[in-house]
Amino acid sequence: MSSKLLEGKKGIIFGALNELSIAWKVAERAVEEGAEVVLTNTAMALRMGETAKLAEKLNTILIPADATNVEELDHLMKETMKHFGGPFDFILHSIGMSPNVRKGRHYSDLDYNYLDKTLDVSAVSFHKVIQTARKNDALKPWGSIVALSYVAAQRTFYGYNDMADAKSLLESIARSFGYIYGREKNVRINTISQSPTPTTAGQGVKGFDYLMDFSERMSPLGNASADECADYCLTLFSDYTRKVTMQNLFHDGGFSNMGMSLQAMQQYNKSFEYDKEHPFD
Amino acid sequence: MSSKLLEGKKGIIFGALNELSIAWKVAERAVEEGAEVVLTNTAMALRMGETAKLAEKLNTILIPADATNVEELDHLMKETMKHFGGPFDFILHSIGMSPNVRKGRHYSDLDYNYLDKTLDVSAVSFHKVIQTARKNDALKPWGSIVALSYVAAQRTFYGYNDMADAKSLLESIARSFGYIYGREKNVRINTISQSPTPTTAGQGVKGFDYLMDFSERMSPLGNASADECADYCLTLFSDYTRKVTMQNLFHDGGFSNMGMSLQAMQQYNKSFEYDKEHPFD
Amino acid sequence: MSSKLLEGKKGIIFGALNELSIAWKVAERAVEEGAEVVLTNTAMALRMGETAKLAEKLNTILIPADATNVEELDHLMKETMKHFGGPFDFILHSIGMSPNVRKGRHYSDLDYNYLDKTLDVSAVSFHKVIQTARKNDALKPWGSIVALSYVAAQRTFYGYNDMADAKSLLESIARSFGYIYGREKNVRINTISQSPTPTTAGQGVKGFDYLMDFSERMSPLGNASADECADYCLTLFSDYTRKVTMQNLFHDGGFSNMGMSLQAMQQYNKSFEYDKEHPFD
Amino acid sequence: MSSKLLEGKKGIIFGALNELSIAWKVAERAVEEGAEVVLTNTAMALRMGETAKLAEKLNTILIPADATNVEELDHLMKETMKHFGGPFDFILHSIGMSPNVRKGRHYSDLDYNYLDKTLDVSAVSFHKVIQTARKNDALKPWGSIVALSYVAAQRTFYGYNDMADAKSLLESIARSFGYIYGREKNVRINTISQSPTPTTAGQGVKGFDYLMDFSERMSPLGNASADECADYCLTLFSDYTRKVTMQNLFHDGGFSNMGMSLQAMQQYNKSFEYDKEHPFD
Repeated sequence: MSSKLLEGKKGIIFGALNELSIAWKVAERAVEEGAEVVLTNTAMALRMGETAKLAEKLNTILIPADATNVEELDHLMKETMKHFGGPFDFILHSIGMSPNVRKGRHYSDLDYNYLDKTLDVSAVSFHKVIQTARKNDALKPWGSIVALSYVAAQRTFYGYNDMADAKSLLESIARSFGYIYGREKNVRINTISQSPTPTTAGQGVKGFDYLMDFSERMSPLGNASADECADYCLTLFSDYTRKVTMQNLFHDGGFSNMGMSLQAMQQYNKSFEYDKEHPFD
Repeated sequence: MSSKLLEGKKGIIFGALNELSIAWKVAERAVEEGAEVVLTNTAMALRMGETAKLAEKLNTILIPADATNVEELDHLMKETMKHFGGPFDFILHSIGMSPNVRKGRHYSDLDYNYLDKTLDVSAVSFHKVIQTARKNDALKPWGSIVALSYVAAQRTFYGYNDMADAKSLLESIARSFGYIYGREKNVRINTISQSPTPTTAGQGVKGFDYLMDFSERMSPLGNASADECADYCLTLFSDYTRKVTMQNLFHDGGFSNMGMSLQAMQQYNKSFEYDKEHPFD
Repeated sequence: MSSKLLEGKKGIIFGALNELSIAWKVAERAVEEGAEVVLTNTAMALRMGETAKLAEKLNTILIPADATNVEELDHLMKETMKHFGGPFDFILHSIGMSPNVRKGRHYSDLDYNYLDKTLDVSAVSFHKVIQTARKNDALKPWGSIVALSYVAAQRTFYGYNDMADAKSLLESIARSFGYIYGREKNVRINTISQSPTPTTAGQGVKGFDYLMDFSERMSPLGNASADECADYCLTLFSDYTRKVTMQNLFHDGGFSNMGMSLQAMQQYNKSFEYDKEHPFD
Repeated sequence: MSSKLLEGKKGIIFGALNELSIAWKVAERAVEEGAEVVLTNTAMALRMGETAKLAEKLNTILIPADATNVEELDHLMKETMKHFGGPFDFILHSIGMSPNVRKGRHYSDLDYNYLDKTLDVSAVSFHKVIQTARKNDALKPWGSIVALSYVAAQRTFYGYNDMADAKSLLESIARSFGYIYGREKNVRINTISQSPTPTTAGQGVKGFDYLMDFSERMSPLGNASADECADYCLTLFSDYTRKVTMQNLFHDGGFSNMGMSLQAMQQYNKSFEYDKEHPFD
């Protein structure tokens, strides 16, 4: 599918680690739809991941930047504007990480230095990206900024830990800065609340497979894939959605507005059969 | 527990069918807390239920009224004011019924006369009660009106059918009329979104027991009982909550803000063990 | 702008009365983007409006149908399938009307026959359209249904009257049926919550111009126009949004997530200067 | 008004700076209703405020603690348990501060060290309080924890700056920890989203008086006062609300669910008269 939806558009993609990454898919699809992109990631991610391959494949440049570091972001914005010959059209923020999750710290026993890190990497970085873009006047009028979120920002999922709080903060930053950047430059800022997705980050969450199954059965259209998420992102970068801003947009096959599906309940009910057959468990 | 929270307050209770009814519990507890109440129900419900017993027990009167019939509501308001010697303090609306559910009509094959009935009985009746109360100037300043709702107003539960739409309408009426009655007479109007409760009506919903189990395991505090709901209602009738209005208040042990609990997931996961042991099911 | 976003898609458009109508714009833009459409409206609207002109301009057919009448809808679905040679891809529902608003009945003095009419025309009609489409198996897998809503479904606007309740009901129907039609046929159902728009219907609302001004100043991107709404609709009919369902999507320049903008407040504050200069008003 | 709603209950009150503080009112009213309280505040606040006077008046103790400092919180919990002779029943968190607001840093020019401070003081402190309480097993089963929030967590108010993001984070922590502490000990955790209140902190917000006026005219019941907020808090500490958890509860005279009131619009409209009379402004 290509309607050249982004013909002539230019943007920065944060967070394309490997082929599983949503950001990877967005970069690929954006180019298919006529856009030019600059890729960026932390030095660490560049060593561990395959972003360089993607840059090669898309015939574009890759500029290292730590999204928690304002100086590096400033450098990124300036280099990107140099590359594109001026201001550009869109930014994708697909960044999240919790040392508390990684180190197995329970939510009732958080390490507060780790929590600071979770919030800084997963949420405050979004503010830093936007503030730096704006100070450089890096985005064209009617530009579009998108960050990826998860429904844990609204509802508690065991094991998602302090990432839930980071996502709430992230969505709030989208609203707060959406107001400022919107009234000044008509730049819109939104978050996409995506189905659980088997990216490298996603798979790190406790009990991820079971959650995927439950989420799949609860969602009338099933979980949304990374590919589908990329397509949805493109609509938000396009000129067809110019008055959508400060929103958190669920891209999840309907999960967010389900209370209980027949399919999930039928599966759940089998557990009672199991209990009957294993009364001493 | 009695703090005489409602000392000197007077009100009408709609929908006390039998001991399982939330309205029944509210009536009992309101009286324990110092209130006087008038009971009301449809003629049909009075025949089938035990409201008369409750009136006797609480030493009060029972005035038949069909909440979808404005004339009967008008009569109810006038008689209640006569009984109380003037305007009173609170109203509980605990009414809901779907002929589509009763007759097993699927949501994709609704009978539209039945749907009209569902909406009229379960939602529009709330408007009729309030409009009639206001026209009779039946409520004192800072009076309080509460209706009972369910989270299906926000999220879809299979089998809950057109009652979900009725609850959405009900909650909207609380907001719309809360504005009007609030600015004029400081009367507040709220809905309580209660856990699934094994009342006579609740038990009519398809797969109710399984839903109760899931809801119980998802809610950190477990499902809220009818007794607990009654206590919560009382706070909304009391003078401690005078600035709460136009709200839908979840009284559900936390269910509404849960995405997935460990307990529910552990139970769910057993279903896969069952599947392994019964590969040909 | 045309990316042939809807190349090969076919659909029905309800509610294109005249050039001011959002549905009118959607029809025009859908065709520009490669779609074929069938127009429909009530016999009354066909007499009063200019839908026939649009049909001529778009070189398509116009099939009269009252969206509250299941038989007429059935006829519409069958004729449309005949016209298109089989099932089609999308439906736009842009229908709303309140006799209480028209006749100046205040929300605290509703005529309940009028209220039934408001709910039937503005909300239940959406269920009827979908149920009839589904019974005729009129939509292809991954089809898309959109209805137009307004933020009054969530928040009370004086003068919007019983239309607020109708919009709540409408959005609930989108969720309820979105579950059913999604799990069966992957058809998605969403509502777009649009800025106040100076259509023939919109202008009928009390104090509409002032509300437009306030809304414009509150929204960082200003009010969304009918043209912009049409573009946004197209994304929801396209294949780029296949996993978005059961959602209410705000297309409003950010209004829905604003509490107070500087611009609106500065305007508001002038009113106090006026008060100072006119102390006896 | 006193129903001895909190007879026998014991709790800690954070944030009673002076008579304007909501926490001050909660402490006073809790004692009137039969509770015992321990007061706490930072050393700085104790020097600048009048908490010591309140402790004297209520005949209780005051334990200094910086809510961002886990060691001091640990000391506070231990001392409070010593004072009460064991675990206690409730905690009020009424703490918020933004150096960015104080120093006049615009939201598009945040100092990120200040932002860290805003988040730590206004939101993460809530996690620290709860985590420390839980590690000390300081709360009885069915205990209740409340923090104060503001609707800026959901909607953007110009000038509220990074406090909006802090409040979103705060409300998320209430949900996340509400799940954990609820399932383990039946402790409930909620936030109250209160009307703008002329406390020492509130008055620091830009354009506060005008916002108060707008909010007053928008809310059908008018703004909620600190006294009324205290009453509402008490219901959440009482045994009447045991199944309410993980919620953000609006105590705001209806503001949160208003889109536009007649009263606010009439005032707003005068600004256009002003414009007509001052065409060259």
